[in-house]
Amino acid sequence: MKATLLVRNIGELATPTGTSARAGSDMRGVSVIHDAVIAVDGETIAWVGPATEAPAIEGAPPKILDAGGQAAIPGFIDSHTHLVFGGYREDEFYWRAAGVPYMEIHERGGGIANSVRATREASLDDMISSGAKRLQRMLELGVTTVEGKSGYGLDLDTEIRQLEAMRTLATVQPVDIVPTYLGAHSVPEEYKGSPGDYIDYMIDTVLPLIRQRKLATFCDIFCERGVFEIEDSRRFLIAAREAGFRLKMHADEIERIGGAGLAAELRATSADHLLKASIDDLDAMAEAGVVATCLPLTAFSLREPYANARAMIDRGLAVALATDLNPGSCYSHSIPLTAALAALYMRMSIEEILTALTLNGAAAIGLANDRGSIEPGKLADILLLDAPSYRHLAYHVGMNIVSTVIKRGTVANARP
Amino acid sequence: MKATLLVRNIGELATPTGTSARAGSDMRGVSVIHDAVIAVDGETIAWVGPATEAPAIEGAPPKILDAGGQAAIPGFIDSHTHLVFGGYREDEFYWRAAGVPYMEIHERGGGIANSVRATREASLDDMISSGAKRLQRMLELGVTTVEGKSGYGLDLDTEIRQLEAMRTLATVQPVDIVPTYLGAHSVPEEYKGSPGDYIDYMIDTVLPLIRQRKLATFCDIFCERGVFEIEDSRRFLIAAREAGFRLKMHADEIERIGGAGLAAELRATSADHLLKASIDDLDAMAEAGVVATCLPLTAFSLREPYANARAMIDRGLAVALATDLNPGSCYSHSIPLTAALAALYMRMSIEEILTALTLNGAAAIGLANDRGSIEPGKLADILLLDAPSYRHLAYHVGMNIVSTVIKRGTVANARP
Repeated sequence: MKATLLVRNIGELATPTGTSARAGSDMRGVSVIHDAVIAVDGETIAWVGPATEAPAIEGAPPKILDAGGQAAIPGFIDSHTHLVFGGYREDEFYWRAAGVPYMEIHERGGGIANSVRATREASLDDMISSGAKRLQRMLELGVTTVEGKSGYGLDLDTEIRQLEAMRTLATVQPVDIVPTYLGAHSVPEEYKGSPGDYIDYMIDTVLPLIRQRKLATFCDIFCERGVFEIEDSRRFLIAAREAGFRLKMHADEIERIGGAGLAAELRATSADHLLKASIDDLDAMAEAGVVATCLPLTAFSLREPYANARAMIDRGLAVALATDLNPGSCYSHSIPLTAALAALYMRMSIEEILTALTLNGAAAIGLANDRGSIEPGKLADILLLDAPSYRHLAYHVGMNIVSTVIKRGTVANARP
Repeated sequence: MKATLLVRNIGELATPTGTSARAGSDMRGVSVIHDAVIAVDGETIAWVGPATEAPAIEGAPPKILDAGGQAAIPGFIDSHTHLVFGGYREDEFYWRAAGVPYMEIHERGGGIANSVRATREASLDDMISSGAKRLQRMLELGVTTVEGKSGYGLDLDTEIRQLEAMRTLATVQPVDIVPTYLGAHSVPEEYKGSPGDYIDYMIDTVLPLIRQRKLATFCDIFCERGVFEIEDSRRFLIAAREAGFRLKMHADEIERIGGAGLAAELRATSADHLLKASIDDLDAMAEAGVVATCLPLTAFSLREPYANARAMIDRGLAVALATDLNPGSCYSHSIPLTAALAALYMRMSIEEILTALTLNGAAAIGLANDRGSIEPGKLADILLLDAPSYRHLAYHVGMNIVSTVIKRGTVANARP
């Protein structure tokens, strides 16, 4: 076996396995190896197993990383974020915390329009520098791949600028970025009262340009009553699919209008939020292989009920967990708090949580074939934990226990 | 003015003021200075104010720290922790999260007895090395002074060893440690069914020894139905006070037995938890100047209701917030999550939260005279935030935004 890096003395290695999402009771199946070794060749994993069975290394001697008995898990995959934006909305956060009603917050100038204004004013350099800082903080928390959405420009120039910022960011720091076009985040002022015309504009003008410049892999839409209804959403997503995009949806977060069912019908890669999704629609998602992405930090920040992940898993869905980082409803990308909320308030087991934050996160962005688990042939995206077991992930409530982040075979962050 | 360190270009400096706890509506009074300068002379603050009014520095030129427009606040004071312990209790965490009843957890070997066993087995070196790691993580989160309790030994040797570990820890790392003897944390196996005899033993044998060796400043007791009832608690605390200790109490957490009233009667420095305290007892605490310490991370981790901090403040109490870090009910010392819980689930304003985590934390350990605010004469324990305003503290939900920690006039931690 050839190897460029040998991670040894891993007290406990825990990982889901496979190259597609794990669903239902399969989410509890985590492979655990004690006194493990990982051999990395270049950017990928060459061998994983117990130290006693490790094959000899041939050729040039590899770098050695002694894990000192720490636990190892796959890098986290945050499959739903809005990481490029301008401005902050802390006033709105405190108004909401103090119980100011939604409409009054809107009248005081809160809401997404606030971020759209600030993002339109942000230059490409602003976006790159604030985005790079956020990505560094994500990396420290163990995120090795992140999905990032546009959607705070709504106009052509700003949406493109958000996507261009992500393209540049992907080249200047280690975290892989999967870009999503979310022009259908909200109906812009310019199209107020005419969401259908805005959909036409995106289909006719924006999608071809983004596709041509290969600026986004996914298209997403905020499918909600009074924003983009089911018919407009179907029309937009079918056009996006025909243009070559893969599909995501913000579905049934606020009101049950059948977004989850539409995601199943169109075989979207994921449907996200799902607080109000019907049982029938969830069953259809399971049938169609759509990943159900739960975003507990948003529920926590809005003091809303959590998505019923327990029922989803018990009905055979593949559940992913993501942060939903954004400047409004959820200004957080705390993976540790996501894990704690899932354990304490969503009744997920720690094995289900680990799977939801790694392999199923990868599946939610269509990349489970090459990442999301520690297995030969996959990218060497690996975390060492300052803890004896992966079971400390939720137990050490809200605390970052990632000590070392290996990204594509290289140590990308090591905690002092 | 003489100075050894000049912190300049502070975009926004926010601090409570004064040398005693702020109570009731005073907790909303935070002093905010834009474009501020702090001059430090040795370990203490020499001058604070707007850059335009800064006096000239005489003598040797100071070190300069350019805050680059960041916000500055006082160092956090975590006034209730159990930072020295042996072993972990992650199984118990997941059992509880999955809804296993308390008694069954107990039968499976969960509960404090588990930590007592592991702590009795831990050597002084074990305690120092695990404690040092925890203190480093606390420092990174901006904690510059911490209270630490014994109470996982219950026998003489282990209680002394916990306190000795804290004494050594105070000399090998920058965070100041205020030690508390909490032998009355639980009735040990050796005294099962005879809490009164255990109280006698502590009064006759343990307190004099700890006092003589100056191993603890405070005595604390877990005053609850079925553990230490009011009469035993009164007897113990009066003896402790006579022996020269200052007093703290775990009061009315699980059942209303009048612990808060006893804290008022004895003029304890603080009473902590207080979830079930009566209005009359809270009023008595306000009257007696007892700090009310709320521990929202514990409520979060146990899925219990939060203490009614809003009512406490509105009735004129001085409220402090602390983490309650311990291996059982709350394995967390996340100051950011504490702030988020206080804003979102306890209806505290961000100014009240800032005061509760700094000046009132200092008051809860009897040190508001020399720390807890950024004012001339106080210790130069100062945080720079990777944010334009202290108002990002709770808004950036669960995230650490501390970029630089100045402890006693020296940079003790700087984020890469």
